[in-house]
Amino acid sequence: MASSYEKHKGNILVRLKRIEGQLRGIQRMVEEDKYCVDILTQLSSVIAASEKVGLIVLRDHIQGCVRDAVIRENGEASVQELIDVVERFLKS
Amino acid sequence: MASSYEKHKGNILVRLKRIEGQLRGIQRMVEEDKYCVDILTQLSSVIAASEKVGLIVLRDHIQGCVRDAVIRENGEASVQELIDVVERFLKS
Amino acid sequence: MASSYEKHKGNILVRLKRIEGQLRGIQRMVEEDKYCVDILTQLSSVIAASEKVGLIVLRDHIQGCVRDAVIRENGEASVQELIDVVERFLKS
Amino acid sequence: MASSYEKHKGNILVRLKRIEGQLRGIQRMVEEDKYCVDILTQLSSVIAASEKVGLIVLRDHIQGCVRDAVIRENGEASVQELIDVVERFLKS
Repeated sequence: MASSYEKHKGNILVRLKRIEGQLRGIQRMVEEDKYCVDILTQLSSVIAASEKVGLIVLRDHIQGCVRDAVIRENGEASVQELIDVVERFLKS
Repeated sequence: MASSYEKHKGNILVRLKRIEGQLRGIQRMVEEDKYCVDILTQLSSVIAASEKVGLIVLRDHIQGCVRDAVIRENGEASVQELIDVVERFLKS
Repeated sequence: MASSYEKHKGNILVRLKRIEGQLRGIQRMVEEDKYCVDILTQLSSVIAASEKVGLIVLRDHIQGCVRDAVIRENGEASVQELIDVVERFLKS
Repeated sequence: MASSYEKHKGNILVRLKRIEGQLRGIQRMVEEDKYCVDILTQLSSVIAASEKVGLIVLRDHIQGCVRDAVIRENGEASVQELIDVVERFLKS
């Protein structure tokens, strides 16, 4: 089965690579004893960027996997799983 | 001036390195068309781990920089900056 | 059209009534100059309880309205609306 | 001891009263079987408004109680409590 996010794969990978770069930057900042608030600002940016990627994957997941499951076989389990992942996301 | 998080520097760097590794893992999952929900779960974990690092830096910042500023010179600006960074964190 | 949350209506109303009571309690605490941290704790509790109600409504919405729209007429608009509401929820 | 939020008391009470009103409005919407997405939108608004009140109280708390504790007696316990409440807020 192709993943639901197939068409955004390039976009998602570019974003993840960028977040990885930000994280290496933060490590450098910590090694060089940079100011706490600047590190916190960078961490906020990592979190916001990770949530953004999550929303892209979530959108594709709902339009793909969840829609398919609903059409194919009612989708009870798929909807339950979706709610769980949204709840986990809300709490993180 | 030494950074407020000096004594947790090793701990913070280990955590950041681990998050960087998680992000590389997520990229691999996307490349291999892994299931959306598993990717979302990993992203939630990156976010929670980044928030945890943020809370460590925040704690040291308050006990270090903010405390010093308050004792030295009332700390009005430092407290304002702290509130801004907490607000940014809550909103990310 | 019956609402999707029909079967949880009683449960939802009880929860909302309880949150309303919590809010009245917080107002009383503020009027009586209660300690900031206790007020913040109560506000966290209001937020968590409101999110809980939101997740109940969301679940019913996906299993009801969204499912119906997907089966009846592909559901493109309904899925888009769902993603928007989840995004708004994640950002609040 | 006067509460740290003394000078914003009126503002805070007006906001809490308004949130209470929103909650009563949501209960009416549920009773009248209003559309799920409209209810979710109202709940997001309650959450955002509660967080806004929280940030006002938090700001006053840091500028008041925490600052005082730091000046008076180092403030170790007060800073710890602050971190805990921020963490609880982040998680809610």
